Amino acid sequence: MSAPPSISVDGARLLRRLDELAHIGAIPGTRGCSRLALGDGDRQGRDLVVTWMRDLGLDVTVDGVGNVVATMVGWDPDVAPVLAGSHIDTVDRGGRYDGNLGVLAGLEVIERCLELGLRPPRPLAVAFFTDEEGSRFAPDMLGSLVYVGGMGLEAALEVRDRDGFAVGAELERIGYRGAAPCPARPPAAYVELHIEQGPILDLEDVTIGAVTGVQGISWTEVTFEGQANHAGTTPMHLRRDAGYAAAEVAVAVRTIVAEAGGHQVGTVGSLRLVPDLVNVVAGQATFTVDLRNTDEGALQAVEARVAARIAAVAAAEGITVSSRPLARFEPVPFAPEVVDLVETTAAALGHSCRRLPSGAGHDAQMLARVCPTGMVFVKSQGGISHNPAEHTEDHDVVAGADVLANVMLHLAAATAPPEV
Amino acid sequence: MSAPPSISVDGARLLRRLDELAHIGAIPGTRGCSRLALGDGDRQGRDLVVTWMRDLGLDVTVDGVGNVVATMVGWDPDVAPVLAGSHIDTVDRGGRYDGNLGVLAGLEVIERCLELGLRPPRPLAVAFFTDEEGSRFAPDMLGSLVYVGGMGLEAALEVRDRDGFAVGAELERIGYRGAAPCPARPPAAYVELHIEQGPILDLEDVTIGAVTGVQGISWTEVTFEGQANHAGTTPMHLRRDAGYAAAEVAVAVRTIVAEAGGHQVGTVGSLRLVPDLVNVVAGQATFTVDLRNTDEGALQAVEARVAARIAAVAAAEGITVSSRPLARFEPVPFAPEVVDLVETTAAALGHSCRRLPSGAGHDAQMLARVCPTGMVFVKSQGGISHNPAEHTEDHDVVAGADVLANVMLHLAAATAPPEV
Repeated sequence: MSAPPSISVDGARLLRRLDELAHIGAIPGTRGCSRLALGDGDRQGRDLVVTWMRDLGLDVTVDGVGNVVATMVGWDPDVAPVLAGSHIDTVDRGGRYDGNLGVLAGLEVIERCLELGLRPPRPLAVAFFTDEEGSRFAPDMLGSLVYVGGMGLEAALEVRDRDGFAVGAELERIGYRGAAPCPARPPAAYVELHIEQGPILDLEDVTIGAVTGVQGISWTEVTFEGQANHAGTTPMHLRRDAGYAAAEVAVAVRTIVAEAGGHQVGTVGSLRLVPDLVNVVAGQATFTVDLRNTDEGALQAVEARVAARIAAVAAAEGITVSSRPLARFEPVPFAPEVVDLVETTAAALGHSCRRLPSGAGHDAQMLARVCPTGMVFVKSQGGISHNPAEHTEDHDVVAGADVLANVMLHLAAATAPPEV
Repeated sequence: MSAPPSISVDGARLLRRLDELAHIGAIPGTRGCSRLALGDGDRQGRDLVVTWMRDLGLDVTVDGVGNVVATMVGWDPDVAPVLAGSHIDTVDRGGRYDGNLGVLAGLEVIERCLELGLRPPRPLAVAFFTDEEGSRFAPDMLGSLVYVGGMGLEAALEVRDRDGFAVGAELERIGYRGAAPCPARPPAAYVELHIEQGPILDLEDVTIGAVTGVQGISWTEVTFEGQANHAGTTPMHLRRDAGYAAAEVAVAVRTIVAEAGGHQVGTVGSLRLVPDLVNVVAGQATFTVDLRNTDEGALQAVEARVAARIAAVAAAEGITVSSRPLARFEPVPFAPEVVDLVETTAAALGHSCRRLPSGAGHDAQMLARVCPTGMVFVKSQGGISHNPAEHTEDHDVVAGADVLANVMLHLAAATAPPEV
């Protein structure tokens, strides 16, 4: 086995496709777009990408939950591909790069290989997974979760949005309830190019991020029940102020996170008071705590400290607590050999590179359950994402796609099936 | 001049009227009612109380802002009355005692005097003032403010609710835009019976509160502008978290108030985050600070400390601040001789009594600008008010009305006009 050649993608073509896809569901006056999963915009986006896939002569399959996989043809069907992918659904008011970049860059890698007449030891493939954002159907990363067998197909098809529309019925409606089986046969490896959605690469002016894994996520919703009272007539020592108690917890989360250090982050992003009036002591407060860490043990320790603080604050204020978990994912480490490969490939192409964990969830964390997996990050200007203002410079887009291309070819070579 | 006789009101009649009035705008399944100022419920309530006033043969006047005053007849029109009063409008979901008690008890005092054939040195009168609650038209205590000349009539008539309806037009619609002049000629004295709307009398099991004055009130709305960011990908040290900063201020308000001590209270009762999502660092937080104290200097000192803390927190978090005053009233002390009179009258009637300031605003604070003024408080069970569950025991209602009656008679005697 010889080392694969170093290739460059056709950057202009990739950027054209990114732009064309972004016109579907475009948000007027912005460069962003809105294509919620399985809506009409998503259908049009899917149709466009599938047309591009078919135009390249790829074998396009659609599975029961609407995941679309396009594979190079001409290999023994038992030879698992090296898969690139991501998603093309967006949040309600999203940017043009999130998800779309990974899919269109994977397609570009395949097209470039076909143009160059390269035949890797394994086929290359590109996928887009259903409902990664979770903005319409919970949980997020639904399609890739089903793809790897983490959720049964029947259960997934019954998931409903808040208007009562089910995933299954919506797939039928838009013509993307396919016949390919779920869970799918695992690919030989999976690589996902994505914008960072955070500020690190931009701040440090580093072109490529070699993603070490995805942070563990712990989301909890807490409700404090105190007593609504007149803000003028209720002495301070008689108050059972749910709003004050929630504020104390929000401040404590910052302190606990700082003391934990490392990759720990923590956020109280939602906080609602009842009755929420200037002259009434809040009788009820509902707030969320979002804790993330790349280390499961450290995350659990912080969860325990926050829970203890919530209990202590509530007891001191004489209020009752109820809480419910909204989400809990353990950290997902990516395959060390793939992380190394991203780093060495970036260096070989002359790009600055650093390792970093992903703070956001990605389809790659699902694929990591079934095959060697890694991710390539490129800059998000100002760290802004999930926002029409999301922006990545053209040269960074192309740099990321070049790294993706060469990582995929290396993976195809490194995992070459035995000669028969 | 001899001391006036001690009289007792007809408690059953007073309670019957309280109940009858509470049936207008009654909230099903509760003992509370909803009669927003100048709405149809308020009109029906006004019509009922005015009917009772006329049935007693009183001289009923309606002024330009809808304040209604009913005065005993048979005195020289230049002899100013001793006035009782309060309001019959309610908050959106209010109780049956707030305001109504003071009006109907004043009416009961007059009816009892007429029954007993008592002729005080001055006429007694009872008033209900328009829009005391301010739940529909800002500011609160609008009618009594205009009554004492604190706001011009034309300006008051132009005040609009959030649907655009003006006070003047609504007064016309319900038939309560009267001809009596504003500001009115000051009464000789003013006394208002009211439920405490706080827990002190109930907690200490004291029947009568001799109200020393009304707290000064400072309401400020503060908006923090930080930067909305991904809760997973934004390192802690790069955050400009408006929600965190607001929570820090809410905690600081509690600390500053505790350090100030005395009658100081402080509340962050409203707090709203944008975008208010579990996984997004809040880019904007809007919250209110309600500070009250009976001492103007102390209140100003606390205002300054809170403002300094807001600025410091914002600077540390790298966020911008804008704030606007929502309300600012200096403390209003009541006439010492009236406070003394309430106390001695309660004692003479065998009721336990304590002095206390009012944490809530009342029409009495407006009347205090133009005549000797005092208030009589009775218990609010559990301190609950502005709530359909508002409750005061029958015997406390009657005790308060008895104190009101004898205070009014003493005031009429103490301020007897010169014999002519």
